[in-house]
Amino acid sequence: MKYFEDFEVGDVYVSRGRTITEADIVNFAAFSGDWYPLHVDKEYAAKSPFGERIAHGMLVLSAASGLMPLTDYAIVAFYGMDRVRFVGPTKIGDTIHVEAEVTEKKEKSELGGVVTFQQKIVDHEGNEKAVATFKIFMASRPK
Amino acid sequence: MKYFEDFEVGDVYVSRGRTITEADIVNFAAFSGDWYPLHVDKEYAAKSPFGERIAHGMLVLSAASGLMPLTDYAIVAFYGMDRVRFVGPTKIGDTIHVEAEVTEKKEKSELGGVVTFQQKIVDHEGNEKAVATFKIFMASRPK
Amino acid sequence: MKYFEDFEVGDVYVSRGRTITEADIVNFAAFSGDWYPLHVDKEYAAKSPFGERIAHGMLVLSAASGLMPLTDYAIVAFYGMDRVRFVGPTKIGDTIHVEAEVTEKKEKSELGGVVTFQQKIVDHEGNEKAVATFKIFMASRPK
Amino acid sequence: MKYFEDFEVGDVYVSRGRTITEADIVNFAAFSGDWYPLHVDKEYAAKSPFGERIAHGMLVLSAASGLMPLTDYAIVAFYGMDRVRFVGPTKIGDTIHVEAEVTEKKEKSELGGVVTFQQKIVDHEGNEKAVATFKIFMASRPK
Amino acid sequence: MKYFEDFEVGDVYVSRGRTITEADIVNFAAFSGDWYPLHVDKEYAAKSPFGERIAHGMLVLSAASGLMPLTDYAIVAFYGMDRVRFVGPTKIGDTIHVEAEVTEKKEKSELGGVVTFQQKIVDHEGNEKAVATFKIFMASRPK
Amino acid sequence: MKYFEDFEVGDVYVSRGRTITEADIVNFAAFSGDWYPLHVDKEYAAKSPFGERIAHGMLVLSAASGLMPLTDYAIVAFYGMDRVRFVGPTKIGDTIHVEAEVTEKKEKSELGGVVTFQQKIVDHEGNEKAVATFKIFMASRPK
Repeated sequence: MKYFEDFEVGDVYVSRGRTITEADIVNFAAFSGDWYPLHVDKEYAAKSPFGERIAHGMLVLSAASGLMPLTDYAIVAFYGMDRVRFVGPTKIGDTIHVEAEVTEKKEKSELGGVVTFQQKIVDHEGNEKAVATFKIFMASRPK
Repeated sequence: MKYFEDFEVGDVYVSRGRTITEADIVNFAAFSGDWYPLHVDKEYAAKSPFGERIAHGMLVLSAASGLMPLTDYAIVAFYGMDRVRFVGPTKIGDTIHVEAEVTEKKEKSELGGVVTFQQKIVDHEGNEKAVATFKIFMASRPK
Repeated sequence: MKYFEDFEVGDVYVSRGRTITEADIVNFAAFSGDWYPLHVDKEYAAKSPFGERIAHGMLVLSAASGLMPLTDYAIVAFYGMDRVRFVGPTKIGDTIHVEAEVTEKKEKSELGGVVTFQQKIVDHEGNEKAVATFKIFMASRPK
Repeated sequence: MKYFEDFEVGDVYVSRGRTITEADIVNFAAFSGDWYPLHVDKEYAAKSPFGERIAHGMLVLSAASGLMPLTDYAIVAFYGMDRVRFVGPTKIGDTIHVEAEVTEKKEKSELGGVVTFQQKIVDHEGNEKAVATFKIFMASRPK
Repeated sequence: MKYFEDFEVGDVYVSRGRTITEADIVNFAAFSGDWYPLHVDKEYAAKSPFGERIAHGMLVLSAASGLMPLTDYAIVAFYGMDRVRFVGPTKIGDTIHVEAEVTEKKEKSELGGVVTFQQKIVDHEGNEKAVATFKIFMASRPK
Repeated sequence: MKYFEDFEVGDVYVSRGRTITEADIVNFAAFSGDWYPLHVDKEYAAKSPFGERIAHGMLVLSAASGLMPLTDYAIVAFYGMDRVRFVGPTKIGDTIHVEAEVTEKKEKSELGGVVTFQQKIVDHEGNEKAVATFKIFMASRPK
């Protein structure tokens, strides 16, 4: 278990990969209720600037959260995100992974503090799909 | 269909509600791969500051995206988010809705521009769960 | 395998039961995209004439189709339905089963014909939830 | 919100599209429990008259229900359906939409009445997949 | 309903088929939480000895359990399994079925006994995917 | 990454927990196609010796596989299981975890060998639900 004290600015984590499939897009449309045709209508998407269906931005962020080794962290709460940008489309068959760097630590109380991760979501060819700043409230190591 | 030109700073949209259920949390843990015990381990959560299982922050944001009337908007792409904060826990049985206000419009090209929504995710008793700034690239009305 | 010739008007089939759960309603709302608040917003439903969330009519019909022993039938195609009526609400926790009676057989060609089932969907206390006339095109027994 | 009074015989609604995917068929087989080989066994389906796996009729109807703008209607209850016919197979990759016309209005009480929609489910090339008569009990506009 | 008395050593059951799809693998990874890259990372799997993504062994066993006609059996409880071996990879698009033979019956009490099935999970070309010995506690026929 | 060489007989792993929910049972019935009433019919289950719905044995094993830290292991293939026994019912709301001990290592070739884990699946009160012997083919550390 990694506690607030165990994170250092500059620490880097590179995750395993996950291929984003047609099933993922269908399942996320279903879960979220976001059936925008760009995601779920092949004919509509073919005529869009992307030329084919693309994954929801929120799908990509959600999958990214599960690629982080969260169960190894002493998380108190998900604090928030800053500056999330979807810099390229995630298409069916793209395999994404997360590259996260600790960019800030801020003690909040004796209970712990906020660790900031600068996340890049990148595909198997190195194309950036999204960038996001995640802020997680981590517990201090119990004394 | 609402185009870039049809949005005005100050426009407000209040969505229908969605009750966040145990099934939603299980399904989102499954989809995302985020099985942090605070979300899916009843015994662990009972001993946490929240006293019970809480929904993933990203679940709440994903559900919120589907509560917006996106299929009525002429969306080119989801541009990004700024300053997302999870200000209160979403528990099993909470019914959330979205209150969104247009706070900025920025023309990017003759193709359209970015409309910024200040989103509040609120439960049925008025408790704020999350705030987020959504930025969507909207198409201009075809001439 | 039951072929067209093997069905007789008056044959009755009583299925096993399936409890309709909150998860079923959430999953069906997701699959279908029908998030009407009567199904998925606890607060809204509490103020409706039903007093609580009820299952989608189409959920009930879909579950009923899976309660029929279809894989024992030599089905060519699902022909259609007549007079479907939702005669009572299906609530979370109701256990439904199907009572189906063959009411008509109509040879269409030497390939087979349409068997008509009068279906009642009934809960564990005998309350009728829905009635429907299913028409299935069954193959003739191979010669 | 559209109330009973707001519907007129002859009103037409044409929905957005949804591509029916292999994942949809798998998910619907799972949800409904209907694993007829024509839907989920590629080898069996290849030898059927359809030559490939086809979507469940009930899947098509369920998806159609979610393509209607139901959350804009003042629905009291789903009354029923008449004469549902599956006039052509829906295959993996077909993009369907709904064309619905109001064909009847029948006041039931001062609470509202039944609006009848004649629905056609059509793919992106104009092929009809199914026709169905939907009957929805709509609330009268509150006075 | 088949009771303990109704099973004979040497009885054979051959099931219908089910095509294992990409959606099944995604859904099972999600359900189980087993996101090993061999199952869900196309690029990783391409470099593995299998050359492509393969289904989880547990997915194959789970699907096999649903291919058995369990609802026709008077099951008291699933007793266990012996010697499960995954003898060949199950790839996307393989259509599997179960061939099960009763190899042992052991009375436990007047309530019933354990029936042992030797299961082979085989694809449409006759390739064995897995073998497993299933032991189910069946009820005696009520007197 | 843990390679064949890194496992020692006697190594013990204790996993995080996962609460088995009604949604899990519904989702697994759907995925597997095993709708035995003991799992999904509340009324039937109430009259069974268990007194309520219980999880599928295969659900419990599948969830257990996802509780193991598989993505930290250099897995070549899932070799098989021996002596799986379901020693107690898993009910809705039970929180299970896995206790696994390495009981055997067997080199197969210079590519690696089979590591045998004796798994106990235990709930939050220490009640054993299942025991299983898992055998995983692990790669040798690359030279």
